[in-house]
Amino acid sequence: MSRKILVLPGDGIGQEIVAEAVKVLNRLREGFGLDAELEQGLIGGAAYDAHGEPLPGVTLEQARGSDAILLGAVGGPRYDTLERHLRPERGLLGIRAALELFGNLRPAILYPQLAASSALKPDVVAGLDIMIVRELTGGIYFGEPRGERVLENGERQGFNTLVYRESEIERIGRLAFDTARKRGGRLCSVDKANVLEVSELWREVMDRLAADYPDVELSHMYVDNAAMQLVRAPKQFDVMVTGNLFGDILSDCAAMLTGSIGMLPSASLDSQGCGMYEPVHGSAPDIAGQDKANPLATILSVAMLLRYSLGEGALADRVEAAVGRVLDDGLRTPDIHSEDTRLVGTAAMGDAVVARL
Amino acid sequence: MSRKILVLPGDGIGQEIVAEAVKVLNRLREGFGLDAELEQGLIGGAAYDAHGEPLPGVTLEQARGSDAILLGAVGGPRYDTLERHLRPERGLLGIRAALELFGNLRPAILYPQLAASSALKPDVVAGLDIMIVRELTGGIYFGEPRGERVLENGERQGFNTLVYRESEIERIGRLAFDTARKRGGRLCSVDKANVLEVSELWREVMDRLAADYPDVELSHMYVDNAAMQLVRAPKQFDVMVTGNLFGDILSDCAAMLTGSIGMLPSASLDSQGCGMYEPVHGSAPDIAGQDKANPLATILSVAMLLRYSLGEGALADRVEAAVGRVLDDGLRTPDIHSEDTRLVGTAAMGDAVVARL
Ligand SMILES: CC(C)[C@H](C(=O)O)[C@@H](O)C(=O)O
Ligand SMILES: CC(C)[C@H](C(=O)O)[C@@H](O)C(=O)O
Repeated sequence: MSRKILVLPGDGIGQEIVAEAVKVLNRLREGFGLDAELEQGLIGGAAYDAHGEPLPGVTLEQARGSDAILLGAVGGPRYDTLERHLRPERGLLGIRAALELFGNLRPAILYPQLAASSALKPDVVAGLDIMIVRELTGGIYFGEPRGERVLENGERQGFNTLVYRESEIERIGRLAFDTARKRGGRLCSVDKANVLEVSELWREVMDRLAADYPDVELSHMYVDNAAMQLVRAPKQFDVMVTGNLFGDILSDCAAMLTGSIGMLPSASLDSQGCGMYEPVHGSAPDIAGQDKANPLATILSVAMLLRYSLGEGALADRVEAAVGRVLDDGLRTPDIHSEDTRLVGTAAMGDAVVARL
Repeated sequence: MSRKILVLPGDGIGQEIVAEAVKVLNRLREGFGLDAELEQGLIGGAAYDAHGEPLPGVTLEQARGSDAILLGAVGGPRYDTLERHLRPERGLLGIRAALELFGNLRPAILYPQLAASSALKPDVVAGLDIMIVRELTGGIYFGEPRGERVLENGERQGFNTLVYRESEIERIGRLAFDTARKRGGRLCSVDKANVLEVSELWREVMDRLAADYPDVELSHMYVDNAAMQLVRAPKQFDVMVTGNLFGDILSDCAAMLTGSIGMLPSASLDSQGCGMYEPVHGSAPDIAGQDKANPLATILSVAMLLRYSLGEGALADRVEAAVGRVLDDGLRTPDIHSEDTRLVGTAAMGDAVVARL
């Protein structure tokens, strides 16, 4: 039976970049034996426009019936004034929670062809290849109670709750240890155990898991130090594992070390290997519809999708190799353009990858 | 009446670096008319060793009777296995809370003489001068309830609470707006308002305060984006204001952009201008007692102390100028040493600053 991929372009540049990724998928179906059906759906602002909510029931149904989801990006200034529960981000947070996509893999890889784009010195980042494993369905993002109350003296107070239970920590920990095992064998768990009780439990569970992974070297680091070390000497890291909020911050910091956030894909996995794949960058409404967006992060998300959810490692390698060849050819979208390279638009970049498959 | 400065060397390199800062203070008293008395006290592991607790009552009494506190650093591996409430960090968190030192000022300044130490490209960081204003006595660091519970199914769950009330946000906001007014007139408030209710209130209060500061340009940024922007283009920032946890992470990240964390001082202020001053770096137990530590961050903390708590702006300028001259002279402790500069130890560096006052 053919596998189903749900395609959710979302907002802003989402439409354009996903269109290029779909070209790649279609070429793999036609020319390289990929057995998969594509279906389109709505999320974020686009879903709000059509259905009055950022994650309509029909989208969730489509998602539940799929083996993998390819997402563009959500959000835009048009939706910023909506009530909280109607905003595009709610659609994203909602689908992560509803499908229990707890395991967020965010690689930060420096493509040698793009080394000059980094704000860091070449020797600090050359060969950079970090995998950040972020817990995505728990922590302070979803913790209850949350909201606003009025205190006795009449002033307002906002409150949120950070919670993690052992099973949640174990689940993300195992994913991280497994990931480290397949890579350099080193795992750094990031927390704030000198201040937060949640982090004490986090650390204890990671230490306990380590017994099952004698081949993986586990270390612990406080989140403030991790932010420093990422800037000082990022190549010391192989795999990092952390909670939802710390992962949000550190993965963006790590991504920016490469200088080319338009190149970075991500995967959000459930415990069955079903997953949602999306570029790390946002919906960039300022350049939407202008054929300027870099589709490579989305195309590389297709590679992750093939590898993690469809078990098509060889096809994934093929996509990644094609992206490498296009970079070697000197093709660049505006975000990664520099002297001596050829400026191309979104569609031309997608076509070039297809031609190089 | 003479002002009182409480000196708390703490642990690790704390003793050595504070000794050099005290040399500077004594020279200012003897030669430049500084009217201040110094008193020594214990905090952190040193206090635990002497009194069985990291923040003894006698230290708090000394602190309450002082106009300013100069702190070295706390913590060390010897104390890591102590029960949570006995650990050195508890002393630090305890004194911040007891004295209501809510306003943490953390400059990230790149000294032109040390530009080569940064991991970032020279053009990205040349002239960097950011002031991070971090809320220091609230947020998830102190929020209740907190701890660990056993769930119905028998598994353990850790929990912490993030809370901010309007008056806390206003207080740190005013300090940040005032700081921006005296600098470049630009303030960036960092939050995670797309996910956290606490951040929504934070943003609302900052917007409300902006009306009182028409000369300051307020902007808002999500914390993940702020971490990225610090790496991508840090010079876009003048003053940043944020909560306790985000401030912990971002100020360390910003500090490391300079590549010379051994140079960075900090101030923690209460609403009366009383304050505690300390280097941004830690207690570095690995190099303690070896005359290797850089005392300049502590000496620059003395400058902040003179400026913010004693109203001695001219003496503060004098200290900062002396540090600049010593760097011009090519003197370097190991952490900032490079070719063509002269390697010196902790004490020689302190002496050199005193000689250049
Ligand atoms: C849009 C936002 C809610 C989201 C998050 O904070 O998780 C984004 O920053 C991300 O990292 O995917
Ligand atoms: C030691 C630790 C509790 C402290 C903090 O998190 O505030 C430190 O990292 C700091 O930034 O002063």
